[in-house]
Amino acid sequence: MAGIQEPLLPVPGFSAMGANIGIKDDRMDFGVVHSSVPCTAAGVFTRNNFPGAPVIVGREHLADGRLQTVVVNSKNANVATGPDGERDSRRICAMLGETLGIDPALVLPSSTGVIGVRLPLEKILNACGAVPAQLATHREGLEDFARAIMTTDSRPKAISVRMGKATLTGIAKGSGMIEPNMATMLAYLFTDASLPPDTLRDALKPAVESSFNRISVDTDTSTSDTVVVMANGLAGPVPPPEFQEALNVAARYLAREIARDGEGATKLIELHVEGAASPEAALAIAKSVINSPLVKTAIYGADPNWGRFVMAVGKAFDYPVALDDLRIAFGAEPGALEISAASQSDAVLEAVSAYLRGSEISIRLTIGRGAFAETVWGCDLTEDYVRGNADYTT
Amino acid sequence: MAGIQEPLLPVPGFSAMGANIGIKDDRMDFGVVHSSVPCTAAGVFTRNNFPGAPVIVGREHLADGRLQTVVVNSKNANVATGPDGERDSRRICAMLGETLGIDPALVLPSSTGVIGVRLPLEKILNACGAVPAQLATHREGLEDFARAIMTTDSRPKAISVRMGKATLTGIAKGSGMIEPNMATMLAYLFTDASLPPDTLRDALKPAVESSFNRISVDTDTSTSDTVVVMANGLAGPVPPPEFQEALNVAARYLAREIARDGEGATKLIELHVEGAASPEAALAIAKSVINSPLVKTAIYGADPNWGRFVMAVGKAFDYPVALDDLRIAFGAEPGALEISAASQSDAVLEAVSAYLRGSEISIRLTIGRGAFAETVWGCDLTEDYVRGNADYTT
Repeated sequence: MAGIQEPLLPVPGFSAMGANIGIKDDRMDFGVVHSSVPCTAAGVFTRNNFPGAPVIVGREHLADGRLQTVVVNSKNANVATGPDGERDSRRICAMLGETLGIDPALVLPSSTGVIGVRLPLEKILNACGAVPAQLATHREGLEDFARAIMTTDSRPKAISVRMGKATLTGIAKGSGMIEPNMATMLAYLFTDASLPPDTLRDALKPAVESSFNRISVDTDTSTSDTVVVMANGLAGPVPPPEFQEALNVAARYLAREIARDGEGATKLIELHVEGAASPEAALAIAKSVINSPLVKTAIYGADPNWGRFVMAVGKAFDYPVALDDLRIAFGAEPGALEISAASQSDAVLEAVSAYLRGSEISIRLTIGRGAFAETVWGCDLTEDYVRGNADYTT
Repeated sequence: MAGIQEPLLPVPGFSAMGANIGIKDDRMDFGVVHSSVPCTAAGVFTRNNFPGAPVIVGREHLADGRLQTVVVNSKNANVATGPDGERDSRRICAMLGETLGIDPALVLPSSTGVIGVRLPLEKILNACGAVPAQLATHREGLEDFARAIMTTDSRPKAISVRMGKATLTGIAKGSGMIEPNMATMLAYLFTDASLPPDTLRDALKPAVESSFNRISVDTDTSTSDTVVVMANGLAGPVPPPEFQEALNVAARYLAREIARDGEGATKLIELHVEGAASPEAALAIAKSVINSPLVKTAIYGADPNWGRFVMAVGKAFDYPVALDDLRIAFGAEPGALEISAASQSDAVLEAVSAYLRGSEISIRLTIGRGAFAETVWGCDLTEDYVRGNADYTT
């Protein structure tokens, strides 16, 4: 993971803010990131058939590969709000464009939170007026933005990666309703590298595919998933392979943080499936296991119940595996603690249980059918997931 | 639901027993149902790619459409136990066949419980020897059998249906690892009607398809799912349509009881999707909603968070629905409490919440795309599901 920088670095030309504008009680609920010059941009959005109004408007605004500003509110997703909701999103872009003196089509709107309720539009329009005075180029501005876009997240998620003179900073939110497909929850990546829109698009797709599209908290796919990358060019060109690598690092880091911060989660689970006959087989088996409630609860309980892994591999009906070829190993390294019907002494079971009591769990499944592998990330399933979601709107 | 009989009726020619043989601490863990004469029989089994040893042996024994006896142990599934496990299942059939004086190929073995551990074979073989003295033709024998096959079930599940002079009695178990595909957890249906094996097979398929294959507790598919129907012919022929209707009634009743008794569940959810463009679309949307953790937790919390239904309908990516065409109604009857962006007054939300506080929840989704409908059953997701499964084997 060379190139990761901590703490979060500001990106030249980008300023940011976050504030409470009264949508939530007292936590921050409104944020903006703005570039001093127009950016090339690319994005991917939810595949949910009921995309939120901001996703509809955002797709339009991204069509020409240019953006300058991102505006986000949390606590309300502006989804299933019909033509009124779409109009609300457009009015926010128009107001912020006017305030900042830019074309409203350069503004990407996002909203995240409860579905089916109209936005408190007046509060947001009023807040847009105060944005220019609040935008800051220092790190704290981005940190405020990262907090302002949180919903059930327990902590902000951000990362910076250096590429020569240029910087890439990514900020994301996401904790529940997470099984992204072609996109994820909200993630914004800002760079001062100079990159044409096509290069951004070409780089974003594989970066998202191997990061946000490989995580799952609860198999539910949000109506608001959005990943956007914006490049303002102030630091000059960066070789595309170097940018791709930085983008991969940032996207994977943010995706893992979303999985780690899954609603109610106590553990990040990294699952590696290897020896599959095809990429599709590897992914189908990995998803079957990482999404299995019985696997997730066993890991939560540090229960070395390896039979549940067998069950979950076996319910990927289209990709049969011979039981004799299946290896289940706990730990990040090859040669880690392996368990099977033949090797389940009390000592081995106890060692697996001890390993599962950690907060970052790595599991390696070898299925002996071919040369393809996949890695996915998820989290355990706990009472807190249920409690938090049994009483969310009320 | 005409034809349902309570209480459980014995079926002429069938005797049954259940006992504790020391696999569990003190609850019953071993049961047999035996017909005095050979039966025609049909069955369906799990699609999980790692079927348990008893499923492998059971498929063989059912191949000729004949059975006479079912033997079940709980607490241990005899799955992922390799050739040893298969040999164990065959030895149980051989021992019971010898004890009862019948061909071992007329015995269907089942095991349910923990995966990956060898059966306590000596205990089971010893128990087989005592079976003839324990078999009883009265109702209590079947009741004991229904208890002996339980694992995490909170109560036994059984039903009887009359068909003229003949009787159909079904007994099932199942509570977790429930999203059957082509079969379900353990369900046994016994009748004294005289029906050829082909008729049994033809009747079983649609009965299972619209019952056990329409329930889900946790999206996990067991390695042991088994549904078997046995007919001993003592009451003479029954018209196939009459038998089909009785079988449908019994299968649907048992499937609903399994969903109602889902691990940790407090509510049975019946979900009806109508107006779909195809049966596949209706089922895909119904499954997406009934399996959504955010829908299940909202219902648990009696939270009228209808946006989660929108999300869950929308994540059936292949079957888009227009938001304006989507109707969500709570209550069993057409014209029940409907909710949408346009009708979510506090009074409506409060009425939905009050309805969701019941123990049997009926939800009707109309999607305005065509004439196809599906009904599925599930349950809410509670802290008890997590607690129970975080510490199951240890």
